[in-house]
Amino acid sequence: MSKDKDAFGVIAIVGVGLIGGAIGMAARQRGLAQRVVGVGRNEQRLGRARELGAIDEFTLDPAAGVAEADMVFVCTPVGLIVPTISKIAAFVKPGAIITDVGSTKSEVVAGADAAAPPCGFFVGGHPMAGSEASGVEAATPDLFEDAAYVITRSGRTDEKALEKLRSFALKLGARTLVMTPEEHDRSVAVISHLPHVLAAAALELADREEDRTPGHVFSIAAGSFRDLTRVSGSSPEVWRDICVSNRGAIADALRRFEDALSRMRGVVEAGDAAEVESFFARAKELRELLKRSKE
Amino acid sequence: MSKDKDAFGVIAIVGVGLIGGAIGMAARQRGLAQRVVGVGRNEQRLGRARELGAIDEFTLDPAAGVAEADMVFVCTPVGLIVPTISKIAAFVKPGAIITDVGSTKSEVVAGADAAAPPCGFFVGGHPMAGSEASGVEAATPDLFEDAAYVITRSGRTDEKALEKLRSFALKLGARTLVMTPEEHDRSVAVISHLPHVLAAAALELADREEDRTPGHVFSIAAGSFRDLTRVSGSSPEVWRDICVSNRGAIADALRRFEDALSRMRGVVEAGDAAEVESFFARAKELRELLKRSKE
Repeated sequence: MSKDKDAFGVIAIVGVGLIGGAIGMAARQRGLAQRVVGVGRNEQRLGRARELGAIDEFTLDPAAGVAEADMVFVCTPVGLIVPTISKIAAFVKPGAIITDVGSTKSEVVAGADAAAPPCGFFVGGHPMAGSEASGVEAATPDLFEDAAYVITRSGRTDEKALEKLRSFALKLGARTLVMTPEEHDRSVAVISHLPHVLAAAALELADREEDRTPGHVFSIAAGSFRDLTRVSGSSPEVWRDICVSNRGAIADALRRFEDALSRMRGVVEAGDAAEVESFFARAKELRELLKRSKE
Repeated sequence: MSKDKDAFGVIAIVGVGLIGGAIGMAARQRGLAQRVVGVGRNEQRLGRARELGAIDEFTLDPAAGVAEADMVFVCTPVGLIVPTISKIAAFVKPGAIITDVGSTKSEVVAGADAAAPPCGFFVGGHPMAGSEASGVEAATPDLFEDAAYVITRSGRTDEKALEKLRSFALKLGARTLVMTPEEHDRSVAVISHLPHVLAAAALELADREEDRTPGHVFSIAAGSFRDLTRVSGSSPEVWRDICVSNRGAIADALRRFEDALSRMRGVVEAGDAAEVESFFARAKELRELLKRSKE
């Protein structure tokens, strides 16, 4: 235990919400830090985070909060990550590692690489363990058990810093994957951002249909529609930031998805039974593959 | 109890799978039938259905099976409903009601109305209580509790027959909704068929992306992608039949969905934060509405 404490040293968490809180809880319970310092803007919420065991102490002053940290986790909303790093860069110790937990990476990593201090290191990260819940009240120390934790390697990434973050993520119980920021953004555009856009568009379409024939659509919504639209309970602000930050990859995924739909529409309209069946048969196979990959 | 038995009389079920089996179980356990006769093509499966309490007796001869029935439930796959009705029409009692449980209605009702005997009645139905499971082994007598049971009214529907089917569906524990076949098909195209096509198309897109960067896509698939694609475990044959039978309404729903996606793509590409946020905010509201409507 004390070896891990020494290896990772003092940890600062800027933004102690669901993800930041869970990192703090895991670090404290697993003995991964000499001390966990919370940094935020709301004293009451930081007090609550301490009560819940997410941090040892807290401060409203980012400069003081990060001054002694060996690792700084920036856990703010996506739109605030680069501004936050710019603000703290001048105050971190030489050799300190700054990382983030943002859902998009190209824009964030480019901005953070530029803003990181010459004597410190920035490594981008994305622990994929969110949920519709938010806030430190929903945080648990085992949130990252078996979750994927993507770590990005850019042209400016220091390999030792990357390895240190990777070893920390493994101690959280996560599976780590190293990708370029661009690979990450293309992948999550398909696997995470696209489903959110589809869900919202399907609700919009159903609502228009319900306007035409009231009581006919929502009242007969079966499991498939409820499954499809479950993610729409998430925060609109979070998804606004993600879509703006990852707009290129999302637009590209949407364009390719529209092409796939339009092709299938042609097959359905033509009543091509064999082609329709093979489309669904292939999907069933792929879904089995996905199921086996973890669920 | 005996009043219900007299009201609904002898019930024949052609195709004793998940839905047919559940209707038989519910009818027997709730005392809704003097007798439940199963009709099918596989003696072993029919024997198993009797063991499970879905039917009182069975026959491989459709003519004999429906001869004494007051209500006949045709629970075959969609593509076999009209051929089955054509086959049994000459053998039902005068005044008997024939109904089906198909997932699409326009084509089925038009064919069935034409095939139904002059002295009997056809009323289309769609109990919306399926799942990825199939077969009588998965049937339960409470499958229809709180489920929507759509009953169709066409130009040829007899009102007394419709009321009798409606009262039977209510005794199964279902909520009944009366629609035209066309209204039904438009609604399910959006609420049920579209989600299946989206799920299959999303798996196809993810698979192509995984080909480009192996290990990057399926291995980081989060809850949203798993929720979206859960329905793809369903039978490709069933969905082939549904898509072919309801091709007009599905193609129309797809076209409108593609338009909605393409509009959103423009908004995302333009980085229009306010518009993106209001899109997700509206979806969150609609999802709340849907959640309150039953879950």
